[in-house]
Amino acid sequence: MRYQRQDLITFAENLLAASGLEPAKAAAVADILVQGDLMGHNTHGLALLPGYLGELESGSMEKLGTPTVLADHPAAITWDGRRLPGPWLVLEAMTLASERAAVQGTCTVVIRRSHHIACLAAYLQRATERGLMMLLTCSDPNTASVAPFGGLDPVFTPNPISAGIPTGGVPIVVDVSTSATTNGLTNRLHKEGKRLPAAWVMNGHGAASDDPAVLFDEPKGTILPLGGMDTGHKGYGLTLLVEALTGGLAGHGRADPKEGWGATVFLQIMDPRAFAGLDAFERQTGHVAAACRASRPAQEGTAVRTPGEKGIALAAGQTSSGVELYSSILPSLSPWAIKLGITEPSATN
Amino acid sequence: MRYQRQDLITFAENLLAASGLEPAKAAAVADILVQGDLMGHNTHGLALLPGYLGELESGSMEKLGTPTVLADHPAAITWDGRRLPGPWLVLEAMTLASERAAVQGTCTVVIRRSHHIACLAAYLQRATERGLMMLLTCSDPNTASVAPFGGLDPVFTPNPISAGIPTGGVPIVVDVSTSATTNGLTNRLHKEGKRLPAAWVMNGHGAASDDPAVLFDEPKGTILPLGGMDTGHKGYGLTLLVEALTGGLAGHGRADPKEGWGATVFLQIMDPRAFAGLDAFERQTGHVAAACRASRPAQEGTAVRTPGEKGIALAAGQTSSGVELYSSILPSLSPWAIKLGITEPSATN
Repeated sequence: MRYQRQDLITFAENLLAASGLEPAKAAAVADILVQGDLMGHNTHGLALLPGYLGELESGSMEKLGTPTVLADHPAAITWDGRRLPGPWLVLEAMTLASERAAVQGTCTVVIRRSHHIACLAAYLQRATERGLMMLLTCSDPNTASVAPFGGLDPVFTPNPISAGIPTGGVPIVVDVSTSATTNGLTNRLHKEGKRLPAAWVMNGHGAASDDPAVLFDEPKGTILPLGGMDTGHKGYGLTLLVEALTGGLAGHGRADPKEGWGATVFLQIMDPRAFAGLDAFERQTGHVAAACRASRPAQEGTAVRTPGEKGIALAAGQTSSGVELYSSILPSLSPWAIKLGITEPSATN
Repeated sequence: MRYQRQDLITFAENLLAASGLEPAKAAAVADILVQGDLMGHNTHGLALLPGYLGELESGSMEKLGTPTVLADHPAAITWDGRRLPGPWLVLEAMTLASERAAVQGTCTVVIRRSHHIACLAAYLQRATERGLMMLLTCSDPNTASVAPFGGLDPVFTPNPISAGIPTGGVPIVVDVSTSATTNGLTNRLHKEGKRLPAAWVMNGHGAASDDPAVLFDEPKGTILPLGGMDTGHKGYGLTLLVEALTGGLAGHGRADPKEGWGATVFLQIMDPRAFAGLDAFERQTGHVAAACRASRPAQEGTAVRTPGEKGIALAAGQTSSGVELYSSILPSLSPWAIKLGITEPSATN
C-alpha cells in the first residue's frame, strides 16, 4: 500500500489544523513528519502523529504564538519554546541561525521547553541544500531510559546527535543516538514480542541483553550507552555532551519539575563560506565520502554507504512512486480522522 | 618511581628549547604533555615527546612565528597553523575564542596544518575553570587506520571528540575517540604482544578481532568505528562529523598531499553566560552529574563516575605526591637528553 507524499502531508496538516494548530505550524509539523517516513525513519514520522494530536487535545502542546526570547547575542540565541510544536520551532530557528551564520560564521539557537521535534534527519537537507553545515541535538528531560556507563539507574534519554554535511554530491546526513538503541525501536519490538539485533539493553541486575522486555520488567532494565558493555564509557561521554548542549545551555531540564513529553534543543548552523570557503569544504567532504564508497566491502556484496545515503535515495524514490507506510501507522490515525472529520488518504496501489 | 610535576615540565621545556623551539611555545607544549601524564593518559603525554623532538630536528615541526589568518568572522576564525606545535596553537586559539565568545556567545577556531595536539583532555579544564564550555576535535589527514562501517579500507584516524563542561563541582571532561580504540593503545599492546579488552579491530578479511597484530598483518586490518560490528554505523557517522568540522571547515585534509604527522583542529568555546546564564547551566549539569554518581552500580563495588573524574583526581594526587610515569617513557627520552645536553629529572622515591 503506497500513498502520495502530498496526500499524506495534506492529511497530517488537516488533522493538526482541525486540532487547533495555526496553519503555518500545522504545515511545518506535517512536512517534517512525512519527511521522516520518506527517509524510512518509520518510528519517527507519522507514527508520532497520534501522540501529537493527543497532546494538542490535552493542551500539553501549545497551539498559538511564538517562542519567548530569553537571551540574544550575535551568534547565540536562547528561546523558551512555550511547548509549541517542535518541528515548527526548529524550522524557525534554522531560518534565524542561517541568516546570522552568514555574518557571524556560525549561529547557535538553544530551545528550552520545545515540544517533541520528531526525526532529526528530516531537517538537515534544508541546510545542506543551501551549502550550510548543521548540528542538531536534543534531550527530553521528562523521561529517562539510558543509564550512565556502569550504572543501573536511568538518567538520560537516547540523546541523538545529528549533522547535515554538504559534499557537493549526496549530502552526509548523520542521525545517531548516543545510546546503543532508541526508545522507539525497543518499544516497537517489545510490543511485537521480538528481540533486538544485539545486546543493546541491560536488565535490572546489570546483565546485557537483547530482549527489549527487560525495559518493562521489574527490576527495570535500561538502554546501554553507545559502545555497550565494553566501550559504553564513550557513548556515556557523548550523552553528557548532549545534556550540556541542550539542558545546560538552555538552563532548563532534568533539575526542573517534569512538564510532559518534550525536548530541549541545540541547533547550530556553520557557514563554510565564513571559514575556508564552500568549495574547499566540499572538496574535503566529497573526497572523504568518495573514499568511503570506494572501500572494499567487509561483506561481499554489501557496498559501503555514507550516512543518510539510503534514506535520501528512499525519499527520492518514494516521492515519485509513493510512500510505503509502516503497517501500524494509518490504523492508529484512523480514530483521529473519524473524530476530527478528516478524509483519510487513498492508497495509490 | 615518582617525579615532581614541575621537574618533568622543566625537563620537557629544556629539551624542546634546546631543539630550537621559542620559549613560550616550549612552555606550552611541556605543560600540555605533562598534564596528559598527570591525568593518566600515558600514551598521550610525555610518551609523545621523543616524536616531537624528532619532528623539530627534521624540520617537520615549525619552530618560529604565528599562524596565518585565512578567514576572520566575529564567531569563526580559520588559521593555517604552518605546522607549528599543536599545544601552543590550541592554547592561543582558546584565548582568542574565549574573548570572542564573551561577546558573540560562541566562537570557533579551526586550524589546518597544525602539528599534533597531544591529549585533548589536557586543555579542557582551562576552559571549565573560567565557566566556559569547550568542544575540541581533530583529525590527522596524514594517516588512516579506521575503516568506514562495513568496509575493509582505512579512511579515517580515530577522530576524537572532547568536551569540557563546568558543573559547579568537578567538571565533566569527555575525551573519546569515535573509533572503538586508538592508534596509541593498539600500537602499545602490539609491541607488548598483548590483546585488546574486546573485539575493537577487524582483520583484513572482515572478521572482528581483539588482536592488535591484525593492524600490522597482510592483508592489513583496521580499527572498527565506535559501536563495533553491530552499532558501528553510529561511530562511523560521528567520525564523518569530525572530518567535516576539521578537514571540511579548515578546507584542508585528506584531499591534499600528505605533509607528515599533524592535525586539523576544530575548537569551539561556548559561554553559558550568553545563553541562559552560568548558574542555570551548572544547575543542570551539576544535577545530571550528581544523578550519575548516585546511580546504583551495575557491578557491586564499582561506583559510577563522571567522565574525567578519575583523571582529575589522579592529577591532583600526582601534583602533590609526584607523577608515576609509564615505564617506557623516560628511557625513550634518555638519548635525547644526552644528545641535547639536558639533565634528566631525579625520581623523588
